[in-house]
Amino acid sequence: MDILDLATIRRHLDIDAVRQDCERNFDEYSKGNSVVPPVGYLAFPDGECHIKYGFIKGDPYFVVKIAAGFYRNVDKGLKPSTGMMLICSTETGYPLAVLNDEGHLTDMRTAIAGSIAAKFLAPAGIRRIGIVGAGIQARLQLECLRSITDCRRVLVWNRTLANAEGLVRSLSDSNLDAQVAEDLEHLVRSSNLIVTTTPAKEPLICADWVQAGTHITAVGADAPGKQELDEALMEKADICVVDSASQCIDHGETHTAIANGLIDASKLVELGDVIGGRATGRETPEQVSIADLTGVAVQDIAIATSVYERWRQA
Amino acid sequence: MDILDLATIRRHLDIDAVRQDCERNFDEYSKGNSVVPPVGYLAFPDGECHIKYGFIKGDPYFVVKIAAGFYRNVDKGLKPSTGMMLICSTETGYPLAVLNDEGHLTDMRTAIAGSIAAKFLAPAGIRRIGIVGAGIQARLQLECLRSITDCRRVLVWNRTLANAEGLVRSLSDSNLDAQVAEDLEHLVRSSNLIVTTTPAKEPLICADWVQAGTHITAVGADAPGKQELDEALMEKADICVVDSASQCIDHGETHTAIANGLIDASKLVELGDVIGGRATGRETPEQVSIADLTGVAVQDIAIATSVYERWRQA
Repeated sequence: MDILDLATIRRHLDIDAVRQDCERNFDEYSKGNSVVPPVGYLAFPDGECHIKYGFIKGDPYFVVKIAAGFYRNVDKGLKPSTGMMLICSTETGYPLAVLNDEGHLTDMRTAIAGSIAAKFLAPAGIRRIGIVGAGIQARLQLECLRSITDCRRVLVWNRTLANAEGLVRSLSDSNLDAQVAEDLEHLVRSSNLIVTTTPAKEPLICADWVQAGTHITAVGADAPGKQELDEALMEKADICVVDSASQCIDHGETHTAIANGLIDASKLVELGDVIGGRATGRETPEQVSIADLTGVAVQDIAIATSVYERWRQA
Repeated sequence: MDILDLATIRRHLDIDAVRQDCERNFDEYSKGNSVVPPVGYLAFPDGECHIKYGFIKGDPYFVVKIAAGFYRNVDKGLKPSTGMMLICSTETGYPLAVLNDEGHLTDMRTAIAGSIAAKFLAPAGIRRIGIVGAGIQARLQLECLRSITDCRRVLVWNRTLANAEGLVRSLSDSNLDAQVAEDLEHLVRSSNLIVTTTPAKEPLICADWVQAGTHITAVGADAPGKQELDEALMEKADICVVDSASQCIDHGETHTAIANGLIDASKLVELGDVIGGRATGRETPEQVSIADLTGVAVQDIAIATSVYERWRQA
């Protein structure tokens, strides 16, 4: 069994290659060619741990991913999110490699999924990218969007202003023209690609603010009780795309909209079906589209496998 | 994150210490002081993988255990069962250690649970130990019973006679008086402590064969479809002990007996309740007792934690 540390993992992580593998795996997932049991979940006084696992039928590997979030870690000088991924053989069951990624691969595959949603759903002319939240995920979403769009104008909003300022400052040596938004409404009204990356438990974005021709990707609602978008927005949207219909109905942005009878599950389209051409994404520049991403094990499988195979080849 | 290989794990594995920790964890489990979600399960063309995870409330560690069984591995010169255990902090979520035990700790904790069942349920005077099956688990059950009973007379039965002979031969330099049973009925009739360790999918042991004053521990039925004991035996038994009532009703020996209406769930007693003194085990030498062990994450937690702490102290 091989052990790959974070530095090694970073060296063998190619965002565009992983994006391609993630698209393929979303497609396989929506076609029913994957085995992805319900997410394992452990709750602790100060945090939580998700265990995601599964495989694509016919592939040589299965992956078990452990991702923990402990929000008090920052008080101890530690990263709040951590984890690791394990690659095993589907032919012998043997563990082949531990990817001790310290949560980085989970952060990256989430950001890469955001860029896939933008690639398939955002309008052709992205004028401005609005980023809601100013943590690691906000930065990574911007990084992964680079090869999807030429747009370099970015507005950042965060509940704590200083953190938004910090993210903008840290982007000063990138070639992004990033600014702090005066308020969230302004960000929403003036951006046509919006990515929400917060752990909010109450809706931040009002449906009324969202202009025609906007795409919003929401990645924050990865567990029950989390919500970033006004549920009326799911009703207003022309296109509601989800990474996993079953998960999003259970605990994504979609959950409240369906529970309150604002939309019907038949309105949901899986991202893999859009990628595979079995469902229609955006059809006109004026449509409002939403991508509700809760995180599916097939993304973990894609990124772990990509890094592992590149490391083996090197 | 530390990596412990199998040789290191073996050096820090103390059977009696783990038995004590397993007893404590069975007790906590049955008192409701543990968090043990349903077992994660992946099925492959040639094998299966179980993911067991959880923690004892208030403890500093949680454990995620991956155990795979791929029966065609023997054709490739590989062990059929493999796996690893991961120890993480319940305070920060950080992975602390990978125990690359190659499935050994799962084999050991199963055998140790068998010895706990014998300690609490077997009659006082064990005349002969009957072992059904001749694989790794059969050998380990005998090893773990050594400090529980002075009985050294052993009968071994296996569907493939050569394997039974092989196990008996390999025990020749132990101080056990081990012999191959002429047939399974003879083994059952002449042993008062019986341990079944096979992957049988149809009952092997007839209820009629079992004499008064016998204790039987069955460890084979760890997944749906497996069964070693005639379900009528659960009805005949005076005491039906289970490691986990919910698991055993779902897929243990107990499953068929309850599904066929032979016994009621109220007949089941959890091993942790016997250990903790909240339920009665054997009361007379004549009683027939059964222990149906399907394997619970609290055993994995006990053995992984014990090895890890002994390694850290050394």
